[in-house]
This record gives sequence, structure tokens and C-alpha cells, in this order.
Amino acid sequence: MKNAIFSFHDDSPKYKQIYEKFKTFIERGDLKADERLPSLRQLAESLHVSRNTALMAYELLAAEGYIRGESRKGYFVNELEPLLLQEASSSSHHHEQTEPTQPIRVDFRADVVDQSHFPLKTWRRIANHVLTVKDSFRYGDPFGEMCLREQIAAYLLQSRGVRTDPKAVIVGSSTQQMLVYLGHILKDEFESVIVEDPGYDGAREAFQFHRFMFETLPVYETGADLSQLEQMKSRLIYVTPSHQSPMGVSMSIQQRHTLIHWVNKMRGYIIEDDYDSEFRYTQKPFPALASIDAARVIYLGNFSKSFLPGIRLSYMVLPQPLLDRYQQRFLLFENTSSMLSQLTMAKFMEAGEWIRHLKRMRLVYKRKMQHLVSALRKEFQHHISIIGEQSGLYVLVKVHLPCSEDWLIKRAYAHGVKVYPTSRYFVHHSPDQPMIKLGFSNLSFAEIQLGVELLKKAWLESNATGFAHDSET
Amino acid sequence: MKNAIFSFHDDSPKYKQIYEKFKTFIERGDLKADERLPSLRQLAESLHVSRNTALMAYELLAAEGYIRGESRKGYFVNELEPLLLQEASSSSHHHEQTEPTQPIRVDFRADVVDQSHFPLKTWRRIANHVLTVKDSFRYGDPFGEMCLREQIAAYLLQSRGVRTDPKAVIVGSSTQQMLVYLGHILKDEFESVIVEDPGYDGAREAFQFHRFMFETLPVYETGADLSQLEQMKSRLIYVTPSHQSPMGVSMSIQQRHTLIHWVNKMRGYIIEDDYDSEFRYTQKPFPALASIDAARVIYLGNFSKSFLPGIRLSYMVLPQPLLDRYQQRFLLFENTSSMLSQLTMAKFMEAGEWIRHLKRMRLVYKRKMQHLVSALRKEFQHHISIIGEQSGLYVLVKVHLPCSEDWLIKRAYAHGVKVYPTSRYFVHHSPDQPMIKLGFSNLSFAEIQLGVELLKKAWLESNATGFAHDSET
Repeated sequence: MKNAIFSFHDDSPKYKQIYEKFKTFIERGDLKADERLPSLRQLAESLHVSRNTALMAYELLAAEGYIRGESRKGYFVNELEPLLLQEASSSSHHHEQTEPTQPIRVDFRADVVDQSHFPLKTWRRIANHVLTVKDSFRYGDPFGEMCLREQIAAYLLQSRGVRTDPKAVIVGSSTQQMLVYLGHILKDEFESVIVEDPGYDGAREAFQFHRFMFETLPVYETGADLSQLEQMKSRLIYVTPSHQSPMGVSMSIQQRHTLIHWVNKMRGYIIEDDYDSEFRYTQKPFPALASIDAARVIYLGNFSKSFLPGIRLSYMVLPQPLLDRYQQRFLLFENTSSMLSQLTMAKFMEAGEWIRHLKRMRLVYKRKMQHLVSALRKEFQHHISIIGEQSGLYVLVKVHLPCSEDWLIKRAYAHGVKVYPTSRYFVHHSPDQPMIKLGFSNLSFAEIQLGVELLKKAWLESNATGFAHDSET
Repeated sequence: MKNAIFSFHDDSPKYKQIYEKFKTFIERGDLKADERLPSLRQLAESLHVSRNTALMAYELLAAEGYIRGESRKGYFVNELEPLLLQEASSSSHHHEQTEPTQPIRVDFRADVVDQSHFPLKTWRRIANHVLTVKDSFRYGDPFGEMCLREQIAAYLLQSRGVRTDPKAVIVGSSTQQMLVYLGHILKDEFESVIVEDPGYDGAREAFQFHRFMFETLPVYETGADLSQLEQMKSRLIYVTPSHQSPMGVSMSIQQRHTLIHWVNKMRGYIIEDDYDSEFRYTQKPFPALASIDAARVIYLGNFSKSFLPGIRLSYMVLPQPLLDRYQQRFLLFENTSSMLSQLTMAKFMEAGEWIRHLKRMRLVYKRKMQHLVSALRKEFQHHISIIGEQSGLYVLVKVHLPCSEDWLIKRAYAHGVKVYPTSRYFVHHSPDQPMIKLGFSNLSFAEIQLGVELLKKAWLESNATGFAHDSET
């Protein structure tokens, strides 16, 4: 490595120029597989850049698979393979895509979690122990292992103000699976359900499983509109009060009381999906509806956003009459979620590791959120509005350009960036301008930076033949 | 430890006398917590017994929690705690019990697997690796991870003769969960389903979820009675052809062809639950129905019996028309089974460890089955018939005494043995004499031996006031 090779120009940030050079070296074969790269210190000194700049360059190369970091050993060149397009198979992006003109460099998917701060050692230690316990070799409790239900009950009291008997906590695989099972009971009594518009499409799918009819509660950037509630026929409502999905707004305390008042009068039920209440950055979390009056609130929570989506661990807290019916109906059903994961999570929580993990992740995600929002503001200025930066693992970007959501996604894709639609969340009403969903949980600062810059190129500095309006794919 | 303390008498086996002595020593405090016991060799030599006798005594003490074996270190006395009754919370035994006069010493539950032969190191190594892979930090494929589906397809072809595209393999948590999801599609076309009588009650529960009506296919010790099939109205049938649950019989090749012929004529579907086909001891496994003609067969398999119930991994193979509808209907549903377990199992299978594990377990369970059956024959002789010893992880014992199932269970319980009813599997017809289910998968030889001896005491040498006939609890 001669530093004479490097002559920085002013057209792009230095870290990107370093990144480009190394990429070329590796692609040309100047750097061979498994060759060690200069340390961060060496690189920074030889190029007269900051170590942070060197780090960003390496992070980007690692993110794209060119190099790998081995702890305490340094960075090494990877065996170069034809870069496979990361065609995500998850349900969150079955959006049709055109062929990208370059490989995907930044993926703003929201349905992942940060990998680098995962408590790998602790989790492994506990999981490995669980495999030696006799209890792990049987079928589990149909409603979830009691040790986990106890830990969840303690956590809910401490963090969400929800007071519950552990026996009223039912463990499941996912929000959808729990809604499918619960829906079987609710269908005895209810024909229709009120859902948020826009709102979580996965929940609507689960209600459709039981052929519930829908009424919709409009939600705007400013919050939900409860004014029509009294005129609706349904006595069952599914809401995300802490962090509306996808609008990101929180329900005010007045609205919460309105809702509780309504449901008690109607003798119905509120299904409160508190799916990512753990990550609130600007103020203390709002209390759960179930903490105000739990008599007619079905509280749902999960470990997908706050821990690991693939662990498939969720829970619900049922009011007594529903609990009795649920337990009777599902007594002979096996639980759907891994007992090993349940036992491991119970011990993880018991040891205080869960609270520790949440605190750490709140800080990590807060910084990433700030980084994304400030990069977006800087690059796009008045061309966009940012929605939902107070909490959660994504923001919505409303784009003030005469273009369609589909065009925005395709243009981004052609520039090597994957971004996600919001149209799937809408039932009746739709936004006046296209809104794009940007997740950041498993992106590094450098990737966030690069992603926003590429988006700017794609959307603002485009050599497109014009703004397309074909919003249907 | 003086061997003068031991003076063997002839009333019971030597291992049991050793066991009783050590138990007394520990309970009296003569042996203190964490004290090391003599090695097997030392014990055998000092008492002039075989090492096997010494081993059986220690195994029994360990099974009851008095001592523990630490690998390569030997046996140690456990801290003595009030023995908690192992009140099993699993769905398999909600049978009401009277208070036992002594703690449960042997539990013939069938819903567990052998712990001592679990491939702990290999599984841990792979599971630990999976946690470092980027793919583990996202949501999974709604129909299961493709790498696992490919491994399952290869296994099914090799072991069950079932030829399938990996895309037609759908991964789920359990047979019941898959039947609940699949039932949603089937209900469009079918109103009723034929189930085996007796048959797996959990499957009936899953069909009841969608309010299917039932017709029943009688099953006897000699096999299923297909003679009424043509007269039935249903075009959908749920069967366990390889190892009928619970009767343990296999469907003959003629019956298999009859069934295939019927379903093709009716344009219906067979749901073939091949739940424990891996463990067949006396001959080669019968081919799966789906290997004869898969056009109208929904094939179900799972890892609960063959690997670990708590892992919650199952799969089904769908015929093309159903597959298309299933994929369309559940595209926006998240998979319910742990992605970590899926990825670990895929690598475990790919490495050949799965086949190795099955071979090992077939041998282990075969020996346990033989041990149980010969002990039962020896102790009970003409008082019982044994049903289903050719395969699976349990036998049925038909008891030729004028007594009820309930009496048998309660008497056993009072003697410290848990045994399980079969009445729950029956729909219309019931057996002429009570049948008891005895599982053995996680029992040692010594425990099996002790359990059978205690059962003999309970059932034959009983000081009961008479044979009770109150079969209702």
C-alpha cells in the first residue's frame, strides 16, 4: 500500500474516496483474499485523515462484503464472489422492483435489528445452559412457560405500568399468530373490528383470517381522529397508541381516556399493540392503555423489534373473561413458540440482562435516528418532511416532489438503495404526497450517510426523463 | 462408606437395595451435600456386585434428584430439597389425579425425548455460529427458510420416498399450528373431515378451530377399517398411516392404495401425518402415502419426536393447487417458528448430523422398547396385552382385569408411577378393556424396570378395597 496512490479530490467525502480506491484494489486483484489491511491507525496516519474517516471507509467495505473485521486481529480482504442481490424474502418487501443498475449498497429495511450490539456472549451462555436442563426435553406449557410469563409480568409493571397476574400473560410466536388464535374467541362475540388507517397491514390480515369486517379510524401526522368513534358499529378496536404504525404519532392522554371511556360504555375490547414502545427518544414513554384501565384492554407485546425478530417470541395479556375462554379453548393446543427460546429469555430477563439490553439499544438507536434525520435534513432541506423521529426504528419521509411512491422506490433502487413503500398501510384515505419508509436499525453511520447521499442523487439530481406517475406496479 | 453397612437380602434386586441404602444415607444426612460418592468401580468391587448393578442404583438416585453425575468427575450428593411433585403442565396430561402416597418415582410420559443422547455439542456449535450470521437479525421467510426447506426435501426423498420441490415444503411450529393455518384454505372447499377413531385429539382440536364436522374411521388393534369409506360424505381425511396414533398399527400397502384410489376418485385430500415414522424397529419403514401418489396428499412431518419437542419445528408438503392458494393467502403472515432454530437445523441436516442422530436414536429407543416390553411380559404375563411394540416411543397396555382406566391410573399414581389414559383419543367407539399408554423415551433401563415393578404392585398385588369402576373423574 503506497499512499502515493491516493490523491484526494474535493468532489466527494474522503472516506468515500478511500472506500472507492480499496474497492478497486480488491476488484482488480491488487489486494488478494485474506490479505491484511493497514490498521485504522496506520491508514489514518499515512493518508493524513482522521481515524473516524478511516473507520467509515472500512465499515462501508465490510458492509458490502469486500473486507471483514476480525476482532483484535484487524481487517482482511474477503474472497470475492459475484455479489448476489440480497433479494429479501421477508413479507415486508414484496414490492416489485426493476433491475438495479448497481448492486444494493444500502438497504433501509425496517424489519431488522442492530447486530453489532446483540448480547451474543450472555445469550449464548444462557442458551447453552438451557440445553442441559431436563425441562427442555418435554413439550411446553400450552400458554407459555410460567417462568417467562412471570418475568414478562414483572417487566410490564415496571416499564409500562401494566399490572397483571402472570397467568393472564399468554406467550405466542408473533402478533399475527396471537391475533389468529385470539380471533377465534373474539369472533364468537364480534363481527367487525375498527383498524387504524393507515395501519399495520399484518394485523388486518390476521383479522381477515376470521373474516372480520373492517371500519377504519383515520390517522394523520397530527394523530388519530376519534371524532367518528361514537358513530361506528364495531365494539372492537385495534390500535397502536404508543407509536402509531406507521405514522409514528402517540395518542395523547385525553385520547386514551376517550378510548377507555368508549370501550367501557360499549362493552367491547381494545386491542393495544404496544409493539415497539421500548424505543422512545425524546421523552418518557407514554403509559400503556392497559395501565389506565385493563378491564377491557387486550395488551400485545413482542420481542421482535426490541430483541430479535427471528426469535419469534410475543405475548398478550388477556382480561379475565377472555382469559378463561382462551384457556378453555386452547388447553389442548401446543404453544407455537420455541420452548428453548422461552426458557433462555426468562433467565436473560431474570438476570437483569433484558433491561440492560434495552437501555443500551435505546441509546444506539437514538444516535442512529439522529444521524439519519440530520443527514436527511441537510441533503434534502425543504424537499421533504420527516415524520416520526421521536421513537421507533424508522422514519417516514414525505417527499414534496411531483412524483409517485413507485417512482421514488425504483429510482432509489437504480442507485443502489432499497427504500420501502407506505401505501400498503392505507385502507381508504391516502396521503397527499408520497411517503417513503426508511429503517435504520442495522445500518452503520457510514451506511446511513451513504444511503442518504445516494437518495439525493436518485431523487433530486436525477437524470430521469421526467417524474413518473405510474403508482401501480 | 463401609461395605459392612450393606447386607443384601433376597426380597428385591441388589441395585434397588443399594439405591434404598444410599437414599437413607442421604436423607439422614450421613452423606452430605456435594460429597463425592464411590466410583462405580469402587462400589462394584466393595459390594461384590457387577458394575451394571452399581450403575443402575446410581442412575435411579440421579433420576430422583438425590445425586448428580458430573462428567469425568464422578457422582456427588445433591442438596436435599423438599421433593416437588412434577406436576406436568403439558397438554398431554390434564387428567385429574389423587394425591400420591409417595413422590413420583417413574413417569411414563410419552411426550418427551431422550436427553442423554442429545447431540449437545454439535447443536450448540451450530446454534452459536448461527447467532453471528447477518441473516439471523431479520424477519424470516413467511413459509420457512429456504435452506431448511431444501434439506427437508432431500431428507424426505431419501428416507420417505417423497419427491417434492423445496418450495412446496412449508415450515411451521407444530402440526396443530399448521392445521389451523391450512384449515383456513381447506374450509373454502370442505365442510367436514374424516378422522381416525381412536385418533390424535390434538388434530381434532385444530379441525374444530374451523368448525369442521367429523366423520370417523374406526381403527382396531389389527388396523383401520376402510370398508365404510365409500359411504362417507367427506372428501377430506386425516390419517397416521405409518404408525397409527395411538394404536400403533401401520396401514398395509393394500389399504394405502385403497385410500389413494378413493381420494383421487373423490377429488379430495388426504392429510398424512407421518409424525414419528423415524422410529420403526422390526422392519423397514413403510413408504409414505405421498410417495405413492402425492397429487392429493398433504404430507405432515415434525421434529418433536425425532429431535426435540420444545424446538417447535414442523413442516408440510402441499400439492400444487393448495400450495398456490396457501402462498397467496399467507404471503403477509410471518412464520411462527424460530428462525434461529430453522437455520441451525438446516446446517445440522446439511452436515449429515440429522441422519446420524436418527440412526443413534433408533437404536437407543429400540433397546428401551425391548426392555419395557420384556419387563412387562415378565411381570404381568397373561394379565396384559401389549400393543404397538414395533415402532414409536410408547406402547399401549391393554389390562385384562375388571377395572377402569381411571382406577389403573390412580393406583399407579398412589404407588409413585405416572401412566397415561387412552380414552381421550376415542370419539365414538371405546375399547372392550382399559388401555394405558406408557412412554419410555426419557427413562433409563433402571427406571423402566422399577416402573414396571411398581405397576405390578399397584395393579396386581394391590391391597385395594376392590376394583373400582368409576371411570369418570
